[in-house]
Amino acid sequence: MQQLVAGIDIGGTNTSFGLVNANGELVFKESVPTEHFPIPEDLVAVVCEHIKRAVLSFQNFELLGAGIGAPNGNYFKGTVEFAPNLKWYGIIPLAKLFEERLGVKTSLTNDANAAAIGEMMFGAAKGMKDFIFITLGTGLGSGIVSNGELVYGHDSFAGELGHVIMFPDGRQCGCGRKGCLETYCSATGIKRTYSDLLMSHHEKMETNEKMTDAKFVFDKAMNGDRYAIEAFNYTGDILGLALANSVAYTSPEAIFLFGGLALSGDFIFKPAIESFENNLLNIYKNKIKILPSKLKENDAALLGAASLIWKNLN
Amino acid sequence: MQQLVAGIDIGGTNTSFGLVNANGELVFKESVPTEHFPIPEDLVAVVCEHIKRAVLSFQNFELLGAGIGAPNGNYFKGTVEFAPNLKWYGIIPLAKLFEERLGVKTSLTNDANAAAIGEMMFGAAKGMKDFIFITLGTGLGSGIVSNGELVYGHDSFAGELGHVIMFPDGRQCGCGRKGCLETYCSATGIKRTYSDLLMSHHEKMETNEKMTDAKFVFDKAMNGDRYAIEAFNYTGDILGLALANSVAYTSPEAIFLFGGLALSGDFIFKPAIESFENNLLNIYKNKIKILPSKLKENDAALLGAASLIWKNLN
Repeated sequence: MQQLVAGIDIGGTNTSFGLVNANGELVFKESVPTEHFPIPEDLVAVVCEHIKRAVLSFQNFELLGAGIGAPNGNYFKGTVEFAPNLKWYGIIPLAKLFEERLGVKTSLTNDANAAAIGEMMFGAAKGMKDFIFITLGTGLGSGIVSNGELVYGHDSFAGELGHVIMFPDGRQCGCGRKGCLETYCSATGIKRTYSDLLMSHHEKMETNEKMTDAKFVFDKAMNGDRYAIEAFNYTGDILGLALANSVAYTSPEAIFLFGGLALSGDFIFKPAIESFENNLLNIYKNKIKILPSKLKENDAALLGAASLIWKNLN
Repeated sequence: MQQLVAGIDIGGTNTSFGLVNANGELVFKESVPTEHFPIPEDLVAVVCEHIKRAVLSFQNFELLGAGIGAPNGNYFKGTVEFAPNLKWYGIIPLAKLFEERLGVKTSLTNDANAAAIGEMMFGAAKGMKDFIFITLGTGLGSGIVSNGELVYGHDSFAGELGHVIMFPDGRQCGCGRKGCLETYCSATGIKRTYSDLLMSHHEKMETNEKMTDAKFVFDKAMNGDRYAIEAFNYTGDILGLALANSVAYTSPEAIFLFGGLALSGDFIFKPAIESFENNLLNIYKNKIKILPSKLKENDAALLGAASLIWKNLN
């Protein structure tokens, strides 16, 4: 009898789910539109039905547990709490709902935490006990691992590095405060930096262009656009400072960058690493690696979610 | 047979040592001038002699272990590494030296980490699993406890919050960089703020006055000196922002302030707490306490050092 764990990733638009084996291989994957389910119980029912059917389709396999990654996920309580990107109001006991339907142990945490554990179980952080995992997406998410364990903190909401205030009178953040790291270091941040640079040089984008994501700025940089390259340098500079400060908290062995911006290679890594080393306290210099995540962009959320269970089984 | 643990605090000027019982009572205390011992082995020999004699003077007591707090202490290796305040050069295997002489299990860490564990074992953090301990002395030291364990990081040098860069072009720090938290929030920092304020208002101190420590500014504030009060507000303001940022890392239940500045009561706590709450991300607001340490100023280092051993026995 071989063993599988379900990974479930609740997103504002889609809910993906899949089955992950002990080697971290995603052997089944599916998704449904989250927005089609105004009542969470209905989503749970449909997803569990798919998962159960998928497990049966594999011969000699059993389901050991299910891990859930969700925005504003509370690991201690198994709940999703007032998630601004979800249509469900209030506190939803998602882990319990899934556990009842699937009949197996179910754990839940936020997406970045789940991905951090995924990196440790199946990615580039294998064997590491102290690292920081950063997702550079629309915002900036993070998971901190210290002494082999994810840092949840007192209320399970530790690791919100995107909301460290870098500049007290800086850019307006969606959280209501100003100068948060994610207003600079994220897809949203670099897009804003790029338009600010264009504006300050009285340049405009072609009328048929629309800046949809960080890849737009990356493509521009690849084509030698000086403002796009400058936007990457500016972003990397601030990211490097923020990461150097992070080291003073948990002194990690490595820091992993994941997500759209992290796929921009040297454009982001070079200025980030340079600023990082320049801003590091002496005792930390030249010993902490800044590395790209080895989780596949599309599978990371599911692998991460499943890792919540695999980690405790190992 | 009752049990005792030795606590040893290696300082640049003096080395204090004592015996701590299971209730966290310091039943014996002594000190020798560190500078009198150019060779660490000689200091170790003298201190161990004193400790052994003291243990014998108690009837029916046995020594269970020894904990050492030392600047630049490496917990994993039991060494003191290139400590700028000590005359000993290079890497000193202090824990091993003490262990050989005393014949009991010996642990070593830096002073702030030791005091953080002391707070957890015998102070105001009893029963807490997630908190941050800040010492506001000449500099700013810290110890972070996550899920009941001190965060050492990969190299044992985690928790250097004094060297988080608050303002990239800020005050020159002794570490060679600029704008570190401890250049603002420490005895040195508030003294500088106070003189800067005097200067910018073309005021001078009385010719017979000398600003020796943070208490000087405290006494001025007590007497209604507006620049002293402003210096406290400025210091508290920056401290509150730094602590709010710290919460985004480890989401603690409480933050403890220890040391000279922390004894200034409302002068420092009031502006710090106000700035802290103003700068906190919504999900953390109104649930994290900023509290004074309950460790006695003079005994904290020894209690903390001994706690390294008591913690592992409990």
